[in-house]
Amino acid sequence: MTDEAALRRGIEDLFAAYVECIDEGRLEEWPDFFVEECRYRITSRADHEAGLPHGVVYAASRGMLLDRITALRQANLLEPHHYRHIVGPIRIRSVANGVAEVAANFFAARIMHDGGTSLFATGRTLDRIAVARAPYRFIERLVILDSHKIDTLLVIPL
Amino acid sequence: MTDEAALRRGIEDLFAAYVECIDEGRLEEWPDFFVEECRYRITSRADHEAGLPHGVVYAASRGMLLDRITALRQANLLEPHHYRHIVGPIRIRSVANGVAEVAANFFAARIMHDGGTSLFATGRTLDRIAVARAPYRFIERLVILDSHKIDTLLVIPL
Amino acid sequence: MTDEAALRRGIEDLFAAYVECIDEGRLEEWPDFFVEECRYRITSRADHEAGLPHGVVYAASRGMLLDRITALRQANLLEPHHYRHIVGPIRIRSVANGVAEVAANFFAARIMHDGGTSLFATGRTLDRIAVARAPYRFIERLVILDSHKIDTLLVIPL
Repeated sequence: MTDEAALRRGIEDLFAAYVECIDEGRLEEWPDFFVEECRYRITSRADHEAGLPHGVVYAASRGMLLDRITALRQANLLEPHHYRHIVGPIRIRSVANGVAEVAANFFAARIMHDGGTSLFATGRTLDRIAVARAPYRFIERLVILDSHKIDTLLVIPL
Repeated sequence: MTDEAALRRGIEDLFAAYVECIDEGRLEEWPDFFVEECRYRITSRADHEAGLPHGVVYAASRGMLLDRITALRQANLLEPHHYRHIVGPIRIRSVANGVAEVAANFFAARIMHDGGTSLFATGRTLDRIAVARAPYRFIERLVILDSHKIDTLLVIPL
Repeated sequence: MTDEAALRRGIEDLFAAYVECIDEGRLEEWPDFFVEECRYRITSRADHEAGLPHGVVYAASRGMLLDRITALRQANLLEPHHYRHIVGPIRIRSVANGVAEVAANFFAARIMHDGGTSLFATGRTLDRIAVARAPYRFIERLVILDSHKIDTLLVIPL
């Protein structure tokens, strides 16, 4: 493989493993996909286009991601459900200094305990990924939801 | 292409051809994607996680797959409908002795005769694929539906 | 990369850029994905299978595509909404004389201004793409919608 092909494969594998981790409910492993000094944010398209810096969900370190999962597991408040993601083809916007900027579309279905399935969220991700060495890790993940109707069940990471 | 890249391309092509065969309604060709001594099973996530061996649909040879399509065509009971699949990026879990183990997410929409469209099923597939020579063929295909609400219309293969 | 791998990558990049252009609302750039002497058609599966040559939407040159976007922007009639596409793996049917024939499945979600999200359209595309030199461009794009229930809001290109 050329370097470019290997880079693309590495990023695609990161995305596939990330989605599988969430969809299969292994949420404790989710923070491992990020570097220690990371940023994770979920926002809406409207807020993003308006330049609003905050989001529905915000974390500024891997520790905060871990806290989020711990709280989620302890609270145990939410009605049992899980997600199923489909990620579209990735677009590599740039690669410089060991960091790749990548965009991708996604659909997330939510399956409730009673079996009810719905198209829960659509949107795109804008990521900065550390690609200097394996395994690739997210430095920054920005999830831009198409809809501003953020469901109160938005607890499981995207 | 490296051997690894060629293997991945071959598996991706198998998935794309498989989905096209079903979505375009060429169901008589569907069993040809399997080796003679195959296993095909559709189950639910809950049953799969509970270790239950049986499924909503089960076939243990290509002949049983053929029977299934024959019955479907003869019965002609079902309301006309078809599917449209989107398969996410594949994950190659292992390759050994000419057999690749592959996981993938999928969404299947169902389009009824009146045009009504819904997100019919989401889930993932766990496959064992014969990759020693072209064309690649399914040895075992396990379709794990996220929802246990198995629609009575679950007749067309997934 | 081999020539075949480079060809596939070029087509995948074209699809990803095309979808991003539409989903991000940069509709003025949409005609640039087509050669000057192009054909663009949206039809339904039923009409396509019946061999009917016309479609819900038809354009026979890049100029007509431009007109379509101009009209859309000026009319400003439609309720604000946008799309989010997921395109499945592409199938390259043939390559000859600098033209590739390509099939792909797609799902399009529509997100209304109030945040309501639905699976708006599913179907497949059959394309003829000029691949003799970069950038690749659509010579002919045929969008075959699974449902004949063509929504009156079908204004944004697919």
